[in-house]
Amino acid sequence: MKRQFIREILDVITKDTISFAGGLPDAALFPLDAFRAAADEALGDPASLQYSRSQGYGPLREKIARRYSEAGFPTHAEEILITTGSQQAINLIALALLKGGVTVELPAYLGALSVFRLAGTTVDGVRLESDGIDVGAFERSIAATGAAYIIPDFQNPTGVRYSSAKRDAVAAALKAHDALLVEDAAYSELYFDRRTPAISAAMPDRSFHLGSFSKILVPGLRVGWVRASEANIRRILVVKEALDLHTSTLGQRLIDAYWEANGLDGHIETVRSSYAAKKRALAQTLREELPEFLFTEPEGGMFIYGRLPGVDTKALVDECLKRDVVFVPGSEFYPEAAPRDEIRFNFSHTAPDAMRRGIRVIAEVAASAARRER
Amino acid sequence: MKRQFIREILDVITKDTISFAGGLPDAALFPLDAFRAAADEALGDPASLQYSRSQGYGPLREKIARRYSEAGFPTHAEEILITTGSQQAINLIALALLKGGVTVELPAYLGALSVFRLAGTTVDGVRLESDGIDVGAFERSIAATGAAYIIPDFQNPTGVRYSSAKRDAVAAALKAHDALLVEDAAYSELYFDRRTPAISAAMPDRSFHLGSFSKILVPGLRVGWVRASEANIRRILVVKEALDLHTSTLGQRLIDAYWEANGLDGHIETVRSSYAAKKRALAQTLREELPEFLFTEPEGGMFIYGRLPGVDTKALVDECLKRDVVFVPGSEFYPEAAPRDEIRFNFSHTAPDAMRRGIRVIAEVAASAARRER
Repeated sequence: MKRQFIREILDVITKDTISFAGGLPDAALFPLDAFRAAADEALGDPASLQYSRSQGYGPLREKIARRYSEAGFPTHAEEILITTGSQQAINLIALALLKGGVTVELPAYLGALSVFRLAGTTVDGVRLESDGIDVGAFERSIAATGAAYIIPDFQNPTGVRYSSAKRDAVAAALKAHDALLVEDAAYSELYFDRRTPAISAAMPDRSFHLGSFSKILVPGLRVGWVRASEANIRRILVVKEALDLHTSTLGQRLIDAYWEANGLDGHIETVRSSYAAKKRALAQTLREELPEFLFTEPEGGMFIYGRLPGVDTKALVDECLKRDVVFVPGSEFYPEAAPRDEIRFNFSHTAPDAMRRGIRVIAEVAASAARRER
Repeated sequence: MKRQFIREILDVITKDTISFAGGLPDAALFPLDAFRAAADEALGDPASLQYSRSQGYGPLREKIARRYSEAGFPTHAEEILITTGSQQAINLIALALLKGGVTVELPAYLGALSVFRLAGTTVDGVRLESDGIDVGAFERSIAATGAAYIIPDFQNPTGVRYSSAKRDAVAAALKAHDALLVEDAAYSELYFDRRTPAISAAMPDRSFHLGSFSKILVPGLRVGWVRASEANIRRILVVKEALDLHTSTLGQRLIDAYWEANGLDGHIETVRSSYAAKKRALAQTLREELPEFLFTEPEGGMFIYGRLPGVDTKALVDECLKRDVVFVPGSEFYPEAAPRDEIRFNFSHTAPDAMRRGIRVIAEVAASAARRER
């Protein structure tokens, strides 16, 4: 098993590297003072540092459940399991329930592909289109695999959001085949225009809806959650226990105390408008500095994805790394045969002036490679 | 797969339950003020809440490596991987390397048995004797499995510490068969008399030495580590990435800041002397209130293990639970056929006066069950 490109990159980049690579939130937005207050409160109780229940901290599960219900997806706290990040949630489900295989998007979230490889889950990839997955191919695929792992909102890596029609068609296909849905909603709250409803709400007993505080608040605490029926929560809870007993008690208590004191919506709105501005900045920079790059502007999330026709982007990134600029070549996001000319750019992490310097370096390296080939 | 008794128990006990069940550290010993200061420092840096490297926070890995070296087991920071508790460490190794099976102690650590079941690792149990594992049976077993998972210091559940002779014999047998050692050292620092050296030090390239802050500092942060050769660290690092990307950045930074400011030895010494006193209190109480219980006093750790001859301890605990007292029946610690009359008592968590009340309840329930059977 090879390491993930993005995890390896983290080991080699320095503070001078201009990185479009990871899905790193903007640390300048982290509410440090509010977390210091939350820590002060949580650390007044020794239970915050003690072992705790595998399903997670009750008050936090109640808050999450209430948030679902308020968004039109009725949920109670027993339908929530706290996980050590969304990444662990994918593991729990794969190890417990996906032995028969799983349908994924092409290109796909790298971390999910690693999980499925580890769990011995066969993946079947279905091409993403600009408005969501190819529904015909999707239906044929789930008929064989019996389960799908998808990111309908601002997909990683492509930034694609499924249209209403495709969301309905996906739910209908899954229900027709009594297949399981794993809906990764890590980016769902990072919309730049309007919220779209969870596909899981149409099939609450046959779905796992995965949420995370990593993109909307902070990633370093490794706290995410799964929303599923009580029966399905029980199925993955035994795996959760075996993997790490429970998620950091203090991490959960900090988020709960933060949420209790500040709510969540104000901060998420700040993140949304900041990322929307950064997306516009990167899109503009790309059009000006790297006009050969073909892409559609996403309506949320953290990534701009596209093609640099005729360029081997894996060779390109190796050259760019020597000049302290990094992105992820699209080929990383394919389990097997992959297009060679795709790129994912993250826009949440890097400041606009550094973005421009970085894209200029990429343009220069690409141009000089093209000259050498002539 | 069924849930772990101990994890289920955590869901049903109340604050009035007298619990001898979990391996819960004494929360009264948690250094809350020092952690509040550590949080204040760590939360001055937004990087404490950001994604971080899969192998773990460098300064913490350096401190851990130095501690090994000072204890006579030369180690550098690249030989340390930070894990989300020791529980995850067992997973990483099982998923990466133990496909061929593993030799375990009988009785065994429950959480390890869950891991091996999940990973599809066949377990072969070898009976523990009062001075460590049955070496002849151990050697025959590892010849077939190629790997062993053992807890040589104050084993969970039995409290057994391997003698020097058995430690040498175990190392020799493993080396003779070129077998892998997974040495769980969660309780190694909780000795009441003297430190015993790690078996892994005799075979640093073919061993994984598992440490944890859960028993010596606080468990709620879920921070542990693995010490192994760089090549072996690389083998499990890819699994670590797939499981949860990395361990909580803040959790690691808190422990590092705490350690930097306070050292570790003073606190561990406090824990040791407190647990030694509580062990003496429980042993005395057992001799006075439940004289039929046969046990040897452990020289460290958190547990007194023994037999209540002729009593079905699983039925006993069900009755005791109705009276708000709980312990773990020994049968839980066996993967298959199990003696029915064994019990594990934890002594770290409960105050001495509550211990006495709890043991009296157990004695009464056992006596009334015996009367009914007559």
